[in-house]
This record gives sequence, structure tokens and C-alpha cells, in this order.
Amino acid sequence: MIKTPYLLFLGDAPDALKAKVAQGIKDWRPENAVGQFRMEGCKADLGLPDMGLAEARAAGAQTLVIGVANRGGVISPAWKKVLVAALEEGFDLASGLHNLLRDEADLAAVAKACGRELHDVRVPDVDYPIANGVKRSGKRVLAVGTDCSVGKMYTGLALDRSMKAAGRKSTFRPTGQTGILITGEGIPLDAVVADFMAGSVEWLTPDNDADHWDIIEGQGSLFHVSFSGVTLALIHGGQPDALILSHEPTRSHMRGLPDYALPSLEALRDMALPLARVANPDCQVVGISVNTAAMSEDEALACLSEIEARMGLPTVDPFRQGAERLAEALDAL
Amino acid sequence: MIKTPYLLFLGDAPDALKAKVAQGIKDWRPENAVGQFRMEGCKADLGLPDMGLAEARAAGAQTLVIGVANRGGVISPAWKKVLVAALEEGFDLASGLHNLLRDEADLAAVAKACGRELHDVRVPDVDYPIANGVKRSGKRVLAVGTDCSVGKMYTGLALDRSMKAAGRKSTFRPTGQTGILITGEGIPLDAVVADFMAGSVEWLTPDNDADHWDIIEGQGSLFHVSFSGVTLALIHGGQPDALILSHEPTRSHMRGLPDYALPSLEALRDMALPLARVANPDCQVVGISVNTAAMSEDEALACLSEIEARMGLPTVDPFRQGAERLAEALDAL
Repeated sequence: MIKTPYLLFLGDAPDALKAKVAQGIKDWRPENAVGQFRMEGCKADLGLPDMGLAEARAAGAQTLVIGVANRGGVISPAWKKVLVAALEEGFDLASGLHNLLRDEADLAAVAKACGRELHDVRVPDVDYPIANGVKRSGKRVLAVGTDCSVGKMYTGLALDRSMKAAGRKSTFRPTGQTGILITGEGIPLDAVVADFMAGSVEWLTPDNDADHWDIIEGQGSLFHVSFSGVTLALIHGGQPDALILSHEPTRSHMRGLPDYALPSLEALRDMALPLARVANPDCQVVGISVNTAAMSEDEALACLSEIEARMGLPTVDPFRQGAERLAEALDAL
Repeated sequence: MIKTPYLLFLGDAPDALKAKVAQGIKDWRPENAVGQFRMEGCKADLGLPDMGLAEARAAGAQTLVIGVANRGGVISPAWKKVLVAALEEGFDLASGLHNLLRDEADLAAVAKACGRELHDVRVPDVDYPIANGVKRSGKRVLAVGTDCSVGKMYTGLALDRSMKAAGRKSTFRPTGQTGILITGEGIPLDAVVADFMAGSVEWLTPDNDADHWDIIEGQGSLFHVSFSGVTLALIHGGQPDALILSHEPTRSHMRGLPDYALPSLEALRDMALPLARVANPDCQVVGISVNTAAMSEDEALACLSEIEARMGLPTVDPFRQGAERLAEALDAL
């Protein structure tokens, strides 16, 4: 529904993590990303060609995707000038922010005048049911993290790639704006009304073939007090057969919460598994994904090896190594 | 803001539990309830005088309160005729349903023509922040249940009554439509957008005197897969110092989930306390409230006594006995 390819708008992102929406598109649909647009002071860089609007249009870009995820989701006034110019230049706009493009009077007016489309992938466009907890056919796997933004989406996308490469049946099921922008479908879980969260996850992962795996994109963390309720709705609505623990070993405190230390992988396992077994008594923890982006190759391999020995579970960095060992762990279930 | 007293509309409620909104108003603000309005087939009865619309107006009723909580929150066509007649008779309408009075074109039109007000207490009217997890001054207590609808709100209201009766500082903090209709303030937590759930609870329970207790109304259950995410947001946003375990011992399965058995009180304690300590490492389980409405007095006392001995915690039915022993347990913290 969103016209490709994209020009990825990084705005004035203060750090690379803030640009994870754009990074995800570039990593998993590189053919859709013709370039990046960065404003003065931008601290993120995807390694794509920096392009102006006219240059990107000439290179074929159809949609300017806001590739920056801000806390609170505000469309900053500093971005407005660029977005208006993009519409005038012939771009559609796509965004996963809480603040909607369509609610900005100036953008809505210019889009209408220019005949362009505004895509707000954050907004639910389905009346989700209340979860009924009924057991569904097919298999489901979910990544749960020690913190937010530790690589759960990457783990899911890499696992989907490994599953498909070996001819296994799988579907990546996005639950956030980046995943929706990458695959074109999914649920914007953090924008769903509380009572319908778990029901939206049931809706996303319906009955399927007995040997089919839904790979559900994880969100938040049971240990992140801002978003833990979203995580639990995902666990109970998804009724996973398998959990993967996700971790970023260099982080000094929970993201955005300086007073909160990260839990250990053992603590995450011991918290998540009993909760998951409320919805699916057969659920197992099958593996661990570690985001070692901040480490050298030697450090990363040592870290993975230490965790694997300690936890007794296949442990990989899916970005460095692919997720084949996690796929094999699902085979073994 | 909602004009009192009320006529309580029970509609065609199929059982007494569905009328818990009206029951709560009658129990905790009896001076606001002049009568009940029941349609044919209604299986709920508050023991208030049955009144027609004109009769209730003559008795002073200002607002018809929809006292029925339906799964999914639909305003049934069967109710419409009564609601339109009530507006024409001079009533305002108040509702906590998901489906809004204001979104029903016929009700909105008649209300406008008659100069009446439509109060949808379900709808958030505040832009809640994302939770920041910062430790707040003052004390907080939260009831967590083995299931939904086991008496958590009653426990909180009774505890507030006991606290105030003995001159302690406390505030009941509603998180659902009944509580909001009773006290006139609070957050409609199950209608809050997922990302802002915990932040809305922080907003509801701000810094306070060191010896003041916020009594936060509980919602859902960690073991109820439809609503567990709401419960966890309440635990992490509320950062309670004290938890009260709430239980209904005669229930044969989780409410609305025939395939799910209720957890034991031990399982609830062992699940809730580690989660609560993520936000407040000093949190303690201080007591147990049991809803024994379905039992004789002898059965109830035997049940309470067995649980108290087994769990080693003060155990009361706040509706039969008041909540003074729970208030004393808070004093002892």
C-alpha cells in the first residue's frame, strides 16, 4: 500500500538508536531504500547516499519515510519545512509516530493540494476483538528482552530469513511501526487501546498449518516499567510455544530509566516463562539472541560463548551470525 | 461534574455481575441512587425501588447512569428506546461503556435538541505521559486478583473507608468507570492507549505526604490473558509499597475463559511480588481480601480462617467485615 522505493528521513536524530526505523528498512528491504535525508545536527548515519529531495525523486524515490522514533512521538517543528517541501516535490509521506501526519493541518492541506498521500502506520485500522484465549493451531515464537531496543525485531526478521532459506514455513508478524513499514502489514501494538491489546495479537496470529511458525515481533520488556504491560499482552495474546531471550550486554541501565538496572538473563527467563505458561503450558525457552553491535568480533564471540555455557541454550547474535541455530532449536521442539 | 442523584439503568443484564457498575454506586454512594430501572428479562436487582422515568424524575433523579458493563462495551439497540425517552424526560446520561454515547447519532441529536448532557466516563480526557519510573513520595497500595471481578474495587473502597474512619490519610484512586462514577475522578485505564498506560497510573498517584496512602483500584489479573497487560501497567505505574491479594473462592474458571483454571493465592503472590519489585524493591504482600458473597456466613468464616492460616497473612472479606485489619497491616509496614 505504501509506494516504494523510499527516501529515508533521519531528521535531527540525536543518536543512531533513534533512527532504528530507517535502519530496519535498510537492513531488511535494502532494495526499498534509495537514500537518506539528514538535517543539520543529525547524529545517525545509515551509510546510504545522502540525498536532497529533488535528487532522490530523480533516483526514483516515491515516499519519504520518517525513519526516526522519538520518545512520545512528536513531529518537531524543525521537520515541518522538509516535509512540506517533500510533498511539493511529489513524495508521499509515511510515518509511525504517535503524532499523526494527518493531524498536522499544514501537512494535510499541502498533501491535499498536491494530491499526495499521508500514511500513518501507527494508527490501528482494525476493530480488534477482546482476547478469548482459545488455543490456536500452528506454532508461535516470541522474543522477550531484558530491555527495550535490544534487537527483538532483528531477531525475528533474521529467524524468518533462516526459516524460509531452509524451506520451513514461517511468517514474520510485525507489532510495531518499523516492522509494518518493512512488511506492509501488522499491528501497531503500542497504539492499541489497553483492553484490546491481547486480542489484537490473537488477530495477528490466527490458526495456521501445524508445521507453520508465526514469528511474532517482541515489544518492550517485562522489566521496563514504561512498557511492560504491552509486553505481557504480547505474551498472553501470542500464546507462544517458544520464547527467545534477547539481550544487549553493554547497556548500563534500562533505556530511558537511569535508576533501573538491567535484569540478568536468568531473571528474565524466570519471570517470562511462568507468565507465558499461563497461556500455553507447553511453552519453552529455546534460545538466546544477543545484540553485540557495540563489541569487537572477539569480544562478541567470547560474550556469546560465556552466555551459552551459563544458560545452556543456543546463543547467537543474529545480525553477525544469522539465526539458523535458533531455527534449529524450533525444529527440535 | 455529573449531576446527582442518579437513576441506575440495569438494562437487560443477564446476571448480577454485569451490573457491578450500578452495585458499586449503590454500595458506596447510596445517597446518589434514588432507584433502579430494569428492562424485561433483567436478571440483576440492587434492591432499590424499581422506577419508571417520570417517577424517578419526580423523586429528584438528574442523571440516568448506565450501570451495566458488557463484554466489548456495546450499547444495545434494545436500550436505545429507553435512553432516548430518558433524554426527552429531562435526564442527562452517563456511561462507562467502550461504545460512546456521543458516537450514537440518535442520542447525540436528541441530547442536543433537549439541552441534555452525555457523559462518557470511559474516555480519557488527559494526554497522559509515558511513565518515567521515578520514585514518588507517599505510600501506595494495590489489590491484585486471581481473576477479574473478584472484588478489587470493593477492597479498595472499603480500605479507604477504614483508613479515613481512623483518621489516617488516604485517597481512593479509581482506574475504571465505576470508580470514576463513584468519586468523580480517576483514569479509564482500559481505554488508555497501550504506550501510556503506566504513565497514566503515575499521573493518577503523584507525590504526596510521607504518611499518605494512595489506594489504587486494581484491574484485571496477571492470570487473565485478555487483560493481564493492563494489570502489569498498573503494578509498574503504581509502584506499590503494598499488595493485597484478592480472590473469589467459588469460581470454577477464569471469567470469560472456560479453558483457564484460577491460580492459587500462592501462585498469584509468587507471580505478582517479583514483578512489583521491579518498580519498588521494598514492596510487600500485606494481606488478602476474599469475596465470599456466594457463601453462607459459616462457610465464609471457615474459608477466611483456612486461607489466613495457610498464607500467614491477615485475610478478610471487606464487604462482610470491613477492611480495618488490612489498614492495620499498612500501619505495620
